[in-house]
Amino acid sequence: MHDDSKSQPDTQPDTPADIRRLCREAAWTKHTAGLAPGYAQANLVILPQQYAADFRLFCQKNPKPCPLLDMTEPGQPIPSRLAPSADIRTDLPRYRVWQDGELVDEPTDVTPWWQDDMVGFLIGCSFTFEAALLNDGLEVRHLACGTNVPMYRTTIECETVGPFSGPMVVSMRPYSPQDVVRAVEITSKFPQVHGSPIHIGFPELLGIHDLARPDYGDAVPVDDLELPVFWACGVTPQAALQAAALPLAITHSPGCMFVTDVLDHDLIAIDDCRDATS
Amino acid sequence: MHDDSKSQPDTQPDTPADIRRLCREAAWTKHTAGLAPGYAQANLVILPQQYAADFRLFCQKNPKPCPLLDMTEPGQPIPSRLAPSADIRTDLPRYRVWQDGELVDEPTDVTPWWQDDMVGFLIGCSFTFEAALLNDGLEVRHLACGTNVPMYRTTIECETVGPFSGPMVVSMRPYSPQDVVRAVEITSKFPQVHGSPIHIGFPELLGIHDLARPDYGDAVPVDDLELPVFWACGVTPQAALQAAALPLAITHSPGCMFVTDVLDHDLIAIDDCRDATS
Repeated sequence: MHDDSKSQPDTQPDTPADIRRLCREAAWTKHTAGLAPGYAQANLVILPQQYAADFRLFCQKNPKPCPLLDMTEPGQPIPSRLAPSADIRTDLPRYRVWQDGELVDEPTDVTPWWQDDMVGFLIGCSFTFEAALLNDGLEVRHLACGTNVPMYRTTIECETVGPFSGPMVVSMRPYSPQDVVRAVEITSKFPQVHGSPIHIGFPELLGIHDLARPDYGDAVPVDDLELPVFWACGVTPQAALQAAALPLAITHSPGCMFVTDVLDHDLIAIDDCRDATS
Repeated sequence: MHDDSKSQPDTQPDTPADIRRLCREAAWTKHTAGLAPGYAQANLVILPQQYAADFRLFCQKNPKPCPLLDMTEPGQPIPSRLAPSADIRTDLPRYRVWQDGELVDEPTDVTPWWQDDMVGFLIGCSFTFEAALLNDGLEVRHLACGTNVPMYRTTIECETVGPFSGPMVVSMRPYSPQDVVRAVEITSKFPQVHGSPIHIGFPELLGIHDLARPDYGDAVPVDDLELPVFWACGVTPQAALQAAALPLAITHSPGCMFVTDVLDHDLIAIDDCRDATS
């Protein structure tokens, strides 16, 4: 549906504002993994206002897969918390446009699809905690393999709100019995980007019967003495949105995230520490 | 070696100071599990000063099994950080006295064994994190069974300092694939009481060949869809001490801990939160 062969800048843009400007000029149209290291990236969902309250509540009731970082005012394309100089209609590399649950377009600019009542939702992305895992010296298997993270539909049902429902989708990263502890500790500090794992060790209890056949992304090798570790995944809201089959909805294209002005570090939940014995 | 059949107070003492006073009067001579809920308890080691520097360094180099909470001045039996009104010679229910690595006495008062150069070490105890696990609604299997925690010698060697060496001893608590995440999150907040697990899932990698045959304590049932979770254990310094076969050493008797004036809550490591992306 699109062609990435056209020329891209030779060097990677450095700052979030640079990246967004290149996206606005359609000079960067590919995925954003690894861009602007240290800055958080976000999943995007844009809906007509009449569905916004339900979708917001869906995110709030399903905070592990749908951690809501920012929400725009109706008709205003500016995510004021995450990047007050940005425009969510133009500043991502590529979008997906959905009508009645069907993918109808994959443009680099959704201004033509924008309506005066549109509301944007920016949802935390696991790139933030993956950076923290790497910084701590842990491997992230699919990054080591140079592939997309393996993702699976589970038998865990999200809490339904209005037209939004569906299974929780999870991502999987395998860890050794020692490293799994650090992986939990690190990711638990980032509740706004899916946080701690939802499950360790027994995929069959999630309704996953073959790790080698993910529903999205690519399979990765899991050693006999490793544990598969499962995190709630940002594909969950997209699956719910597709199932809702709204007349019109817009999302980012997979991997083509919104690059924010917020540091990964600022998404650490410093208050979380005080809850342990309360 | 001792007789607990003599009369004990009918009701449980409530405050740390009450408990220590009853111990001092030899009116409480049994284990301290469940006493003074909310207050931290500690393992005790007392050594002649000539071994104190090595033992302190042994604790510092092996902080997961030997988290040092307080240390007394030579000849002074007062743990000023944990309980400035206490006397470590009399304020525990029961002690063990070791000569050349052999257990020679199990008194309720070690004043007769005290020397002018004695140094006391108070080491964090898992009772604190078990209280936090229970407060969060998690089960602690051996408490549910009414037994002692199962403990195992591992093939992990402690870092040796002077005469002190030996294997890390671990305790084991089984958890479901969901609960294991909370168990890591909660215990990781308490680095001064062993902190997060050192291993999840594969006992054979620790040199443990049969969970049903612990080296210390009692076996607990582990379901097929549960993971065995292993924490560094406060028996480690006792094993190192016994192996060192010092001319004289004193410890608490198992389960008969020093009850401190410090709240469990105050052992939460609030600064730990800031390390994740540094």
